[in-house]
Amino acid sequence: MEFQDYFPIWNKLNTAQQDRIMGSLADRNVKKGTVIYSGSLDCTGLFLVKSGQLRAYILSDQGREITLYRLFDRDMCLFSASCMIHSMQFEMTIEAEKDTELWMIPAETYKSIMEESAPLANYTNELMASRFSEVMWLIEQILWKSLDKRVAEFLLEEAAIEDTSRLKITHEAIANHLGSHREVITRMLRYFQNEGMVKLSRGMITILDENKLEKLKG
Amino acid sequence: MEFQDYFPIWNKLNTAQQDRIMGSLADRNVKKGTVIYSGSLDCTGLFLVKSGQLRAYILSDQGREITLYRLFDRDMCLFSASCMIHSMQFEMTIEAEKDTELWMIPAETYKSIMEESAPLANYTNELMASRFSEVMWLIEQILWKSLDKRVAEFLLEEAAIEDTSRLKITHEAIANHLGSHREVITRMLRYFQNEGMVKLSRGMITILDENKLEKLKG
Repeated sequence: MEFQDYFPIWNKLNTAQQDRIMGSLADRNVKKGTVIYSGSLDCTGLFLVKSGQLRAYILSDQGREITLYRLFDRDMCLFSASCMIHSMQFEMTIEAEKDTELWMIPAETYKSIMEESAPLANYTNELMASRFSEVMWLIEQILWKSLDKRVAEFLLEEAAIEDTSRLKITHEAIANHLGSHREVITRMLRYFQNEGMVKLSRGMITILDENKLEKLKG
Repeated sequence: MEFQDYFPIWNKLNTAQQDRIMGSLADRNVKKGTVIYSGSLDCTGLFLVKSGQLRAYILSDQGREITLYRLFDRDMCLFSASCMIHSMQFEMTIEAEKDTELWMIPAETYKSIMEESAPLANYTNELMASRFSEVMWLIEQILWKSLDKRVAEFLLEEAAIEDTSRLKITHEAIANHLGSHREVITRMLRYFQNEGMVKLSRGMITILDENKLEKLKG
């Protein structure tokens, strides 16, 4: 599989634009735990994940973190090229959560093509909207429902009641307990799973990191 | 002043595109307090503010609100045309905070031009990045910054917008803006009053010591 197969609108670029990308592309392999971008670093470029996993998070003055979203195979990271879009003024940190292979497109190359290519500019719009939606979802959960805390509390309570870390319970049942919806609970549990707190399998939720859940519960 | 003067990239559109916009444009006057868009309504279109003030906020199941950002003269509202961008999946409400004159561009018109025009697509990118930055700022305020700073900041901002140190605003309204509760805000304001920063009276908060508020704001 080549870069062309990973880049979704490759065929909508003209040959000159394709050549500019191919001519400036860099391959990178990063080890798990490497911070590949932080708000204070220069405008690195866009990352396209070939394989592995990246995590985008924000960091408080006190060193607290909150995960904004994750990037998996074929995902593209826009915010590591924040200089590309004038109004993009916020800081986040991007870290390799697994050993990751990726391509890096220099910000200037991408920007110069985006300025002349409606397909690339529209694709970029879609990418940004998609991340924006994830972040909005997160805000709502945290602000209104403290749903993260409530799910954590529920799981810990169940584990204590049943005296096991392997909970046989459906997402539907948790939703009913918490006055929420199955889809919302599933999404929150996946968030927990990505954070290494639980493992999800058919009809089962296994608690992997009780301390982390306790801490989240507050 | 005409629409053309308000629309920043007007000269980068070709005549056919300009004609399509002018042919589908609608003038609207909305009274203070009118909800002009809510997540549950259809894809309304893009609003360009001629004069007045709009507020974008999210609403919880329990009716709590938090202000995401405000739109003033010449600002354009993208999210009232969420159908335009596939990945834009979140709900917000947009309300006229003052009597407002605006233009409405139908979502289909805008979308069809954006698909062929790199300048319009890039402009849209800038707009979205700018709102995204405001929302990210807000998250950070909520997550990391303490409420005293946020209330101070809010009072100073309101005073600047309204150009007065005598703010006609209820504690309830401040709570809604900040995603907090009236009781919490009242307590904080009384603290501010005790510190000589403000004076509270019925339906009114008078700023007495701007410097002290600025200092608290940090």
